[in-house]
Amino acid sequence: MKKYVVEFIGTFFLVTTIGCVVISPGDAGRLAPLAIGSVLMVMVFAGGHVSGAHYNPAVTLAVFLRGRCPAADVAPYMIAQVLGAAAAAVVVLFLKGNRSVPTDQADIAGALIAELLFTFALCYVVLNVATAKGTSGNSFYGLAIGFTVLAGAFAVGPISQGVFNPAVAVGITVMGLSSVVDIWIYLAANFAGGAAAAVAFGFINPDDK
Amino acid sequence: MKKYVVEFIGTFFLVTTIGCVVISPGDAGRLAPLAIGSVLMVMVFAGGHVSGAHYNPAVTLAVFLRGRCPAADVAPYMIAQVLGAAAAAVVVLFLKGNRSVPTDQADIAGALIAELLFTFALCYVVLNVATAKGTSGNSFYGLAIGFTVLAGAFAVGPISQGVFNPAVAVGITVMGLSSVVDIWIYLAANFAGGAAAAVAFGFINPDDK
Amino acid sequence: MKKYVVEFIGTFFLVTTIGCVVISPGDAGRLAPLAIGSVLMVMVFAGGHVSGAHYNPAVTLAVFLRGRCPAADVAPYMIAQVLGAAAAAVVVLFLKGNRSVPTDQADIAGALIAELLFTFALCYVVLNVATAKGTSGNSFYGLAIGFTVLAGAFAVGPISQGVFNPAVAVGITVMGLSSVVDIWIYLAANFAGGAAAAVAFGFINPDDK
Amino acid sequence: MKKYVVEFIGTFFLVTTIGCVVISPGDAGRLAPLAIGSVLMVMVFAGGHVSGAHYNPAVTLAVFLRGRCPAADVAPYMIAQVLGAAAAAVVVLFLKGNRSVPTDQADIAGALIAELLFTFALCYVVLNVATAKGTSGNSFYGLAIGFTVLAGAFAVGPISQGVFNPAVAVGITVMGLSSVVDIWIYLAANFAGGAAAAVAFGFINPDDK
Repeated sequence: MKKYVVEFIGTFFLVTTIGCVVISPGDAGRLAPLAIGSVLMVMVFAGGHVSGAHYNPAVTLAVFLRGRCPAADVAPYMIAQVLGAAAAAVVVLFLKGNRSVPTDQADIAGALIAELLFTFALCYVVLNVATAKGTSGNSFYGLAIGFTVLAGAFAVGPISQGVFNPAVAVGITVMGLSSVVDIWIYLAANFAGGAAAAVAFGFINPDDK
Repeated sequence: MKKYVVEFIGTFFLVTTIGCVVISPGDAGRLAPLAIGSVLMVMVFAGGHVSGAHYNPAVTLAVFLRGRCPAADVAPYMIAQVLGAAAAAVVVLFLKGNRSVPTDQADIAGALIAELLFTFALCYVVLNVATAKGTSGNSFYGLAIGFTVLAGAFAVGPISQGVFNPAVAVGITVMGLSSVVDIWIYLAANFAGGAAAAVAFGFINPDDK
Repeated sequence: MKKYVVEFIGTFFLVTTIGCVVISPGDAGRLAPLAIGSVLMVMVFAGGHVSGAHYNPAVTLAVFLRGRCPAADVAPYMIAQVLGAAAAAVVVLFLKGNRSVPTDQADIAGALIAELLFTFALCYVVLNVATAKGTSGNSFYGLAIGFTVLAGAFAVGPISQGVFNPAVAVGITVMGLSSVVDIWIYLAANFAGGAAAAVAFGFINPDDK
Repeated sequence: MKKYVVEFIGTFFLVTTIGCVVISPGDAGRLAPLAIGSVLMVMVFAGGHVSGAHYNPAVTLAVFLRGRCPAADVAPYMIAQVLGAAAAAVVVLFLKGNRSVPTDQADIAGALIAELLFTFALCYVVLNVATAKGTSGNSFYGLAIGFTVLAGAFAVGPISQGVFNPAVAVGITVMGLSSVVDIWIYLAANFAGGAAAAVAFGFINPDDK
């Protein structure tokens, strides 16, 4: 149970921060990716020793495929993450409101590719810095994971909103920052990116079972 | 005594930096949270080995409740922190002056929630990265703690000024950046957030007494 | 083979991020160096334990001269890096398009010096943080390497575009961000900077063979 | 000799970056402190294992007073630092030119206090993260040192230019960014700040000789 609580808390603060820095632009403005990457970093550093600090169903899938997450934890982890994101959305709507109406993705192919690529990058980084023998005991895992999202949000944020995380996709949909009809883009691309990262990890770390 | 000096110095530079980057906006501007998170980070890295580097009465409360701060240190720590903040306020007023008149909080419920949530996040991160067995010996504690404030300041700075720290509340009140009638908001929300973090820490780290 | 895959992946994401944050300025804007330094950092942290995480033919040259890269790996590493950069260029052109026409370097001497100096700095940092006995086992190598590029891009980006990497030079030429007639500037200055860094490393670490 | 070369190289890149991001503002703009803090961080990580990575006569004074720099090294270190800064000034003037005329400090008392305080902070951080028993073997020393300058530059840059370093004072004077008649402000305040930090370090680390 304590692991699920950690997943809830971490995803809650990730999505709360995302909502706050994106709604009513002009607050954090272009620095939003720095705030988002930082909150993910700190939550990974804070919760990694308890739950592994996934905060992202695509990461949970990747870690499961890599053999470092028990099958029995997969569903509860994902549920805790989505609940954390939904709770964050409620809090953000109370704190900041949101009267903007989401527009549908104009470039679906671009959004799919952008989400696929950077969710792959995120899960590839997670597996290598947080589960590989070759980097065990390091003190940089949170920095590496958080700042992958920072880089991805700067790079493809204008294309796909820079989500890379199905729980975040749920959160921003509840907050009205993304159209309901587009959520399949994130679910499909993010889980595919996570699975691809697990395959890539296995290929480049053949002796690390 | 040396511990109290470290608490004084750390809080002094935290509040000096806050005052300097907030007064006469246009200097650091929107990057203020980066400066504030960074100065907290460096002071935590510099002073952690002597005093634990709280620099924040809410953190001292959380660390005390978690059992890592002797009862006899609680009051002197808080006094040193408040004195450091007050001294910083005097220095900032000398260096930069401040002719703006603080406005009262328009949204008290929002400010209470924002301060409660992110002070919880800050103390939750502190307890997990600086006092937990599972992360002992790490080299990231200052980065995690400082950048929690960075993320919180970006996220809810526009709602509550992003204080998360009763000593900072005193400092910005002395500097005239916050109204005296609002200081209870910070005191109440910050101490409550710290206490809640201690409870959460105990729940997710049941074997770590 | 796995090492070449890691070099391909790392260089791919480095150049994808560069292309995305530079084309259609206004997206990441002046924060582009933060995004670029961050993606290099995370890819170094993720891939260092497999391939050494060069992602840069000038780094491969420097590491080879320092005696930490087998001669048989030099050509495959550089090929993997250039292929990764070229693949990234294709993806970026699909995602963002680029209708701007590159202008030739106005100040060739300035560009040569800027590229020489900061490629030297980059390779000097790499050799000292990732191959020296005196820093072995550290957790900061990716941060140091990535943020050298961040600093260099802020410092001399306006002079030479802040490339410091022949594979990146190929990538931005394919994307139409740099003129074909200028690519010799990067090839010459970057390889010379890498070689000079190997000499400097040997001088300051005489007992570290 | 190798130690002096490292001091020359590190100070050279520090001052080159400062000059490039400050002259012709609009390039790095308000992000200048991020570039400056980052280059100092990477040079500290790269050179710390050889020379201790001072790159600053005030730091050399503080480390000498704390007993971690041999007396015979003090003068050569400072000379190497000043030569590195002067060489950087020549390179920056070649690369970027500078037609602005420096104005004298308008507020000498403010500049003295600002430089004294943050040079104290810088040397206090250096001594605690790079020479204290309580933090030995850490992987954060460069981050802590570099980002102290980042925070100080954001905080008091508008008051005193955020120098905190006599070698940097020489460099910016040669580049015409600071008036010759003001250099005593930096020399006096920076060395005083370094000496005060050594005293504070001794007080808070009484058993660490």
